[in-house]
Amino acid sequence: MDIFHIVQQIRTRKPVVHHLTNWVTIYDCANVVKVLGGSPVMAHAPEEIFEITGIASSLVLNIGTLTVDFVESMKIAAKTANLNKIPIVLDVCGAGASQLRNRKAYELIENSHIDIIKGNASEIAAVAGENVRTRGVDATETNLNLIEIASTLAKKKKCVVAITGMHDIVSDGEQTFLIKNGHELLSHIVGTGCMVTSVIGTFAAVEKDYGIAAAGALAFFGIAAEIAAETAELPSSFKTKLFDVLYFIDRDTVEKRTNVEQV
Amino acid sequence: MDIFHIVQQIRTRKPVVHHLTNWVTIYDCANVVKVLGGSPVMAHAPEEIFEITGIASSLVLNIGTLTVDFVESMKIAAKTANLNKIPIVLDVCGAGASQLRNRKAYELIENSHIDIIKGNASEIAAVAGENVRTRGVDATETNLNLIEIASTLAKKKKCVVAITGMHDIVSDGEQTFLIKNGHELLSHIVGTGCMVTSVIGTFAAVEKDYGIAAAGALAFFGIAAEIAAETAELPSSFKTKLFDVLYFIDRDTVEKRTNVEQV
Amino acid sequence: MDIFHIVQQIRTRKPVVHHLTNWVTIYDCANVVKVLGGSPVMAHAPEEIFEITGIASSLVLNIGTLTVDFVESMKIAAKTANLNKIPIVLDVCGAGASQLRNRKAYELIENSHIDIIKGNASEIAAVAGENVRTRGVDATETNLNLIEIASTLAKKKKCVVAITGMHDIVSDGEQTFLIKNGHELLSHIVGTGCMVTSVIGTFAAVEKDYGIAAAGALAFFGIAAEIAAETAELPSSFKTKLFDVLYFIDRDTVEKRTNVEQV
Repeated sequence: MDIFHIVQQIRTRKPVVHHLTNWVTIYDCANVVKVLGGSPVMAHAPEEIFEITGIASSLVLNIGTLTVDFVESMKIAAKTANLNKIPIVLDVCGAGASQLRNRKAYELIENSHIDIIKGNASEIAAVAGENVRTRGVDATETNLNLIEIASTLAKKKKCVVAITGMHDIVSDGEQTFLIKNGHELLSHIVGTGCMVTSVIGTFAAVEKDYGIAAAGALAFFGIAAEIAAETAELPSSFKTKLFDVLYFIDRDTVEKRTNVEQV
Repeated sequence: MDIFHIVQQIRTRKPVVHHLTNWVTIYDCANVVKVLGGSPVMAHAPEEIFEITGIASSLVLNIGTLTVDFVESMKIAAKTANLNKIPIVLDVCGAGASQLRNRKAYELIENSHIDIIKGNASEIAAVAGENVRTRGVDATETNLNLIEIASTLAKKKKCVVAITGMHDIVSDGEQTFLIKNGHELLSHIVGTGCMVTSVIGTFAAVEKDYGIAAAGALAFFGIAAEIAAETAELPSSFKTKLFDVLYFIDRDTVEKRTNVEQV
Repeated sequence: MDIFHIVQQIRTRKPVVHHLTNWVTIYDCANVVKVLGGSPVMAHAPEEIFEITGIASSLVLNIGTLTVDFVESMKIAAKTANLNKIPIVLDVCGAGASQLRNRKAYELIENSHIDIIKGNASEIAAVAGENVRTRGVDATETNLNLIEIASTLAKKKKCVVAITGMHDIVSDGEQTFLIKNGHELLSHIVGTGCMVTSVIGTFAAVEKDYGIAAAGALAFFGIAAEIAAETAELPSSFKTKLFDVLYFIDRDTVEKRTNVEQV
């Protein structure tokens, strides 16, 4: 897995990453794509979705502050992305917290082919269905159950599933990766989950193996967090530093720090 | 008033604070709850409000960028909060600037029981009614008139009223506090008024005496600002520092600096 | 062109700058007005637009995340601004990327008198019409074509046109300025284009010659970026510094660094 090669591709090709995301972290999602070297575009008016997704190299959907109308725009974007054969990353943000989120996540997954479904343990469990939810996903996030959930859902939907947590899991149904990069400070500021989804979307815009794209993005973001935390120990300074690191990080650093296991 | 005990309760219990707030400062409102140790949730789709407010320990409403539909979602949330006996903080942001804001603030206060009404002098005056507005609230913010306005409105609505300004006033109709913590730099960046409302909402999630919760939150936020301003004298650096301080501030600092008078 | 005199006017008069802008950069747009010394107001509910624009000294419109309804609110605001004889700045953000954006930019320009139209080369070309677009505007941003496009559009619409790029161009149809202040780091973070539009809106609130206001704002923002980049070489630190510089920048610095040519 040559993660830095993907980063170089982003810096060279400056892919357009179309987002329909939530209103809380929309700036950070756009900015993380920008500092990586990509071109973020945030647009949601149904009248222009077809054209905007049409100029993009990948599509990021995030239901964090969903409304019924907003999800309708997402569906047009997803259909367009499928038509244009560009990857779709869906962050099932908050799935499990309401029937609306569960239903809309389900509709998005059924209406189009989603290439990468991403969430934390309880969100993915909610998407994977009730019989999985009962297995106690909240006990140890990196346990065998979660790996099985990711792998089973990936096989069923013929997609990549990414479960974030202390360690992240990425499975395409055949290969499964355990990503051990990251830092605890990421959990003390709002938006890091949304931001890493945008990083995954940017990686997938230039790397056709979406399992590699997702695992690479999670490792890369985690490495940046580790470096940022070395000089910034408090959440807000850490966030500033994190963006700076994402901008200048080099091959050597990435290669020395990558901590990804195939399981 | 053991302010730091409230902070410890937040850090231990990690209360969910549901927001329907404005689009300008939504990230900062979420992040301030997070760095305090709480769990912010921003959600406004009418179809899910009942469930989302249902998992929350307090509700924060802010009409800063209101629309008619958005306020309808707020009303569902407020009814749910009343039903579940969790506190509601209403920031009457911009009240007085338009008939719409006055009317919607009025509707929100009449439709449900609001536990804490918060605004600056002219916003609270607009909510309190015309006969109060004429007393010259813009002259000296900490004058007797404002204390009387807060106390009268609190009695009338059987709630806590918080008026922010150079000094902040909190009254539950019986007890009234004057909070002298804070720093002038807070007025040179956007969003500190909204942020402190979210801090009040987080305090009220764990402290049942809402007068104490509001006064404590204002003092705590003010103390953090004082400390931040000691090493960051310009607005944007100050803001970064403010969030960092809110994260690490300890009991000693809070106790030494608390400057709250009962009036 | 006494740029610093305009800044002093802003700091003294604290003009209210009403925005209907995009959801990605709305915080930064508000905050840039605030650190300059102005009073940002973001409000878009059609029921209150007339009153809110009514208390403003200038109006900033930005179609970055437009919807059909949102543009209807913009039209009410623009009509009100014309009625009240306060300046309107329109950022045609993303024009050229979709038919919707082109059509709505056109409608806004036809429905009311826009005082300052602002965009990058391809956005302004899209607004100026097809016969202009074919001249190869993307080749050299500071070439004669762009100056001609700005000047022609300014004459046609009897307004000021600002084209941003490595060098910025401002024309009122008679006078044309080339602004050479700025820094490359501005292009590595999201929102600097929107922010400078808000700076233009704030300058126009106190400076009646809108060509001078626009050119002065672009130079001023560019100077702040140059200074920020001297001590902050990475994008996120640079952004923090940029806001700090905008807050404290003094007459000497502005006068020494202003790099504006009349062409």
